[in-house]
Amino acid sequence: MSPRVYLAGPDVFFADPELWVQTKKTICDLHGIVGVSPLDELPDEPAQWSTFPFWRKIAHRNEAHIRSCQALIANLTPFRGPSADVGTVYEVGFARALGLKVFGYATTTEPFLARTLKGAAAQMQPDGSWRDGEGLLVEQFGLFDNLMIEGAIIGSGGALITGDADRWTDLTLFERCVAAAAKVLVA
Amino acid sequence: MSPRVYLAGPDVFFADPELWVQTKKTICDLHGIVGVSPLDELPDEPAQWSTFPFWRKIAHRNEAHIRSCQALIANLTPFRGPSADVGTVYEVGFARALGLKVFGYATTTEPFLARTLKGAAAQMQPDGSWRDGEGLLVEQFGLFDNLMIEGAIIGSGGALITGDADRWTDLTLFERCVAAAAKVLVA
Repeated sequence: MSPRVYLAGPDVFFADPELWVQTKKTICDLHGIVGVSPLDELPDEPAQWSTFPFWRKIAHRNEAHIRSCQALIANLTPFRGPSADVGTVYEVGFARALGLKVFGYATTTEPFLARTLKGAAAQMQPDGSWRDGEGLLVEQFGLFDNLMIEGAIIGSGGALITGDADRWTDLTLFERCVAAAAKVLVA
Repeated sequence: MSPRVYLAGPDVFFADPELWVQTKKTICDLHGIVGVSPLDELPDEPAQWSTFPFWRKIAHRNEAHIRSCQALIANLTPFRGPSADVGTVYEVGFARALGLKVFGYATTTEPFLARTLKGAAAQMQPDGSWRDGEGLLVEQFGLFDNLMIEGAIIGSGGALITGDADRWTDLTLFERCVAAAAKVLVA
């Protein structure tokens, strides 16, 4: 049976998310993987969810989808700030705790430190560290985003693939991620 | 035995994080809870970690700490953008997948939508939805942050406590969160 991979990312906020997700799923198919999207219906949705507000159904459905997968591929392109979309990062943490392999990609190679310093009114301290305008330390490990994310990727045996590409329309980095996942998952 | 609660938040970036964490732990003690901090040493750190770079040790140590706890209390105060710190959100997702009870607090009551619209160059669409300057949909469910976070809190039987207080020095909201956690966890 083909391995199931959850497709996490702010892609659900795109202008035509259904079409976009279908394109991503087709790429997965070509690599022998079943792409599972947050937009997919959940088979056997628990009856008690019928009383839940829509947003809560989405949250629980996404969690159920992740539980049904062997890996997760996250679009970690910075989203409305220096870091990835928090919904995506939540799902990375969720997947990691369950032992899934975690893969991530982003359409920029600009490091986390450089992205954070923009607009953070940061000042370099005598010891070379940076603090933002509120005096809070800026993480500075030479990583692509917060260390928990890269810890999950490396710890799970996944891969992080970044490149300078069109911010929200590029699919080549995603496909490289799918190929990396297929290499690990497809027997 | 007192329940163990992981104290997640960007508090580790404060000017004197050790002192701050000690204060939080003292508040936990007063409510019959053991506060576990990302800064705590890990007993029985696996020998193979000795070869890991420091940031990776932090990531794996935090995960191990969360696995040793029954609940997590997250400082969800918006951090360098409209949402909570991504490291914290990662840990919320991680804890949720393991079945921990999730509590959160923030020192602002400003809704997620209002925070996101600031600086997102968003435009209202004919159907009343908002799209940011890149055409991406702005989440609009009347929640405090991304729906995955609130889904975890409500789904786990935890609580979200927000109030207008001093951004990084207030401890009253944290203490209300600890009290709520103690009520659920302490027999």
